[in-house]
Amino acid sequence: MGSSFRAVTYRDGVLTLLDQTELPQRETYVELRKLEQVADAIERLVVRGAPAIGIAAAYGMAVAAREGVSPEVADARLRRTRPTAVNLFWALDRLKPAWSEGASTAELESIAQQIDAEDGAACRRMGEFGAELIPDGAGVLTHCNTGALATAEWGTALAAIRMAHEQGKRIRVYADETRPVLQGSRLTVWELMRDGIDVTLVPDGAAAHLMYEGAIDCAIVGADRIASNGDVANKIGTRGVACACRAHDRPFYVAAPWSTVDLSLPSGREIRIEERSPEEVTHIRGVAIAPEGAKVRNPAFDITPAEWIADLVTDRGRTGSPVGAGLQRLKNA
Amino acid sequence: MGSSFRAVTYRDGVLTLLDQTELPQRETYVELRKLEQVADAIERLVVRGAPAIGIAAAYGMAVAAREGVSPEVADARLRRTRPTAVNLFWALDRLKPAWSEGASTAELESIAQQIDAEDGAACRRMGEFGAELIPDGAGVLTHCNTGALATAEWGTALAAIRMAHEQGKRIRVYADETRPVLQGSRLTVWELMRDGIDVTLVPDGAAAHLMYEGAIDCAIVGADRIASNGDVANKIGTRGVACACRAHDRPFYVAAPWSTVDLSLPSGREIRIEERSPEEVTHIRGVAIAPEGAKVRNPAFDITPAEWIADLVTDRGRTGSPVGAGLQRLKNA
Repeated sequence: MGSSFRAVTYRDGVLTLLDQTELPQRETYVELRKLEQVADAIERLVVRGAPAIGIAAAYGMAVAAREGVSPEVADARLRRTRPTAVNLFWALDRLKPAWSEGASTAELESIAQQIDAEDGAACRRMGEFGAELIPDGAGVLTHCNTGALATAEWGTALAAIRMAHEQGKRIRVYADETRPVLQGSRLTVWELMRDGIDVTLVPDGAAAHLMYEGAIDCAIVGADRIASNGDVANKIGTRGVACACRAHDRPFYVAAPWSTVDLSLPSGREIRIEERSPEEVTHIRGVAIAPEGAKVRNPAFDITPAEWIADLVTDRGRTGSPVGAGLQRLKNA
Repeated sequence: MGSSFRAVTYRDGVLTLLDQTELPQRETYVELRKLEQVADAIERLVVRGAPAIGIAAAYGMAVAAREGVSPEVADARLRRTRPTAVNLFWALDRLKPAWSEGASTAELESIAQQIDAEDGAACRRMGEFGAELIPDGAGVLTHCNTGALATAEWGTALAAIRMAHEQGKRIRVYADETRPVLQGSRLTVWELMRDGIDVTLVPDGAAAHLMYEGAIDCAIVGADRIASNGDVANKIGTRGVACACRAHDRPFYVAAPWSTVDLSLPSGREIRIEERSPEEVTHIRGVAIAPEGAKVRNPAFDITPAEWIADLVTDRGRTGSPVGAGLQRLKNA
């Protein structure tokens, strides 16, 4: 079954996006019939999460074809919406050549649907492999949003949680807030409540206490990039969750599609960490919560070393531990 | 020198409080000349931090005496302002008997000034003992607010930082936000900026990354209660900071007045953790940041085990490690 909602759907020339800028207060959908509307929605973060952006852009090409735009114009416009979203380029690289070589609108729609279906299938496999790690009755901590809001359906780390739930396991999910952008409180809590999965919101700093108390038995998070030795770059705060798991002897798991693995990277040391705007920390929804002129450090990601990861779930299977050796095995499988 | 401001001052029958509800946006002071004004200010959190509340209540008794209120009325009114503030009762227990036995207003003022001076001296000693732990050039993480805003002056953990700064050590302070109530961003950053000490605000979840990067060399925090074995109850998130220190082999220090030590408690296991309102997590300054009806866990404190603490600073000296044995030594000294 997967999630009870879809972030991205397409039918008869209409691309429908769940407007994530309105979450968690309102669940509204926007219907897009023009290239410019699709590009604008991606830029305004109506849709977010690398896989979901890729799928939206793929359907955006079909929308543009119906509109009578040229493949060059459509590709160029969509390409400049989110310049760091890898899945966006990957989707456009599949659609543009086909279109330039004369593919019909129906054929473009079919390619976009295939990208959508492939992502859904990969997430479902991650869910199946990942659910094996979550025992009945477990308290599971998750960080940031790795759910159906960010993918075709199911999600990555949340796919494991969803699948465990569908298998009838009685699990309690703890979603941390994920400061500064609050993807946990705004998106993960919304998405799990929407699907009837038991979820409790906690401040980032409360995770260690909940492990001490016995409420949290394991943690599962997503990944933005995985080095060949198994080091994982993910949303800031991930490393802190892993530290708490280590101190309390709780397993720390990562779930991410194989496309996240970058075998050209020897280790996490080579990953440059983006520093984001201080306003994300000093203001919440426009309200100042720190003194004017305060100096801020706001790294967007952190690195968790492979040795701290008990298992890494991909759509090709689980690495087991050690993670680096498991990645080599999955690569050659 | 200590801090460049005082949270609580008293002169000629006028109690002046730095209005902490207006921080960090505005530095305003309120002048109180009546018992009811003092009680109301304590209730509205114009003044906060156990030592500062005790000092304000002590001067409040002097204010009430000048006003012509009876000792019983003044004591009862102040006693019900903050029912869990230990220093409040301790201050009233010194002033009320003296007043009932006929002490003059001048004598009451003198007792209040003595309480104020004793707190200042204890903080200064913590500063001196604590500064020994902070090397020149260090990056020091702190959590919550343990500064001059919460005490007569200097603070507890911040006293160590202030003293190291006054000794000419070039230190960089990292103040974490301290979700959910944001005492770090709102108060600690304000107070250190006010005193010209280099301070950088970071999300709670970023501490582990900054240790990995090498920016943070040690952490120093305060305590709400210390058990005889050295286990420490402090603001939620403290235990997570200690986990990050452990994982990165950085020393984790605690600074608190001897009055915080409760030798009747065998260990932290016996400390009940208060659970606070979900709204602290789901709303910031009245703005909803989570879905309506979200389930929340919001423990106000956590316990850090003695084994994770490299040293504990009190106004009687440092325990060294192990902390529990050091407490026994200081007790008998």
